[in-house]
Amino acid sequence: MPTTTGTPARGPYKRGIRRREQIVAAAIPIFGEHGFAAGSIRTIAERVGVSHATLLQHFGSKEGLLMAVLEEWDRQTVERGFTGVSGLDYFRRLPLVMGEHLANRGLLELFTTMAAEASGPNHPARDFIQRRYTHNLTTLATHLQQAVDDGDVAPFTPAEIDIEVRLATAVLDGIGLQWLLDPATDVVATVTTYINRAVTDWSAGARTGRTSR
Amino acid sequence: MPTTTGTPARGPYKRGIRRREQIVAAAIPIFGEHGFAAGSIRTIAERVGVSHATLLQHFGSKEGLLMAVLEEWDRQTVERGFTGVSGLDYFRRLPLVMGEHLANRGLLELFTTMAAEASGPNHPARDFIQRRYTHNLTTLATHLQQAVDDGDVAPFTPAEIDIEVRLATAVLDGIGLQWLLDPATDVVATVTTYINRAVTDWSAGARTGRTSR
Repeated sequence: MPTTTGTPARGPYKRGIRRREQIVAAAIPIFGEHGFAAGSIRTIAERVGVSHATLLQHFGSKEGLLMAVLEEWDRQTVERGFTGVSGLDYFRRLPLVMGEHLANRGLLELFTTMAAEASGPNHPARDFIQRRYTHNLTTLATHLQQAVDDGDVAPFTPAEIDIEVRLATAVLDGIGLQWLLDPATDVVATVTTYINRAVTDWSAGARTGRTSR
Repeated sequence: MPTTTGTPARGPYKRGIRRREQIVAAAIPIFGEHGFAAGSIRTIAERVGVSHATLLQHFGSKEGLLMAVLEEWDRQTVERGFTGVSGLDYFRRLPLVMGEHLANRGLLELFTTMAAEASGPNHPARDFIQRRYTHNLTTLATHLQQAVDDGDVAPFTPAEIDIEVRLATAVLDGIGLQWLLDPATDVVATVTTYINRAVTDWSAGARTGRTSR
């Protein structure tokens, strides 16, 4: 439900929002540390000082709470990593943002597993994960178009933009998985190499007229 | 147990090998279509005409059969896609190989899910998946070094080789996941863009002396 007025919420409604936020804040380290299956709803409820039933009343189900946790993770990521950043700078920020995800191993593990499990047609979180991918791809496409409009890179066709944003997303997902499997993976160096090469190629196109794509 | 003689296996041992192969062949479409959790061991056993107990005798557990299926998938991929291909040509073949994986959606889904689930420290398949990644990264590194030795690309440091093979692997994993979530994803075009850009960058380094890495 969108807030249609500019006035702050009051009374029971405001208390409900704050309680919701407290539950999500408590769930992040618990899902982060134990994963979704083993993360206990009861522990989360106890930590906030509400009953199991009250918690479920706010989120409908354990899956509902999980989705709220992942949305909050996204929100914090955007706020910490991307505030005021647009165009090519958005892409140049990606190595740093991935590096920060490593401080929250459990959440990275949780999202990686959930996205993969949602690859099956009947998974309950499939819609949520699909929407999240569509949203993230659209965000990246907007910033790449911004880079074109800024004159930093040569124009792309829509198909080329789709390819570029899917590649950047694939690199982030794939490197995250490799780091989870092998902590020796140098995530920041790897993503930096990818982004520098892409930006150089896009920028060379802006200077010379792109013919090879 | 390695075969230490060059003579073909005979008698009961040979029958055991053939039975094992039959079970794996029957399991591929069943795990491929239904996934691991819903793929029924009993259906696989019935299709081959063996008992549930005989099947388990060959593979120890459902997980053991799954690993044999994934190893066979790898073997077929190598045989169909990479026979006689080395150096840069190995990388140039990757878009085609990924394209062929799309004909076997269930297996791609199965591997994607299993790799992600094995990102947790206590998953029973974690060792298997880690070994598979190490093996695949080593194979890619060997071919990149071959390209250096062939004079096709400028020399790399070991750290640079690690980054390049991890990036290529990340792109394949990540694009596979995106295709599973959204079949409109143009897997072959995306991987082709990635490989062409990387090869061009590596080759430019061979001509001009690489300074930016």
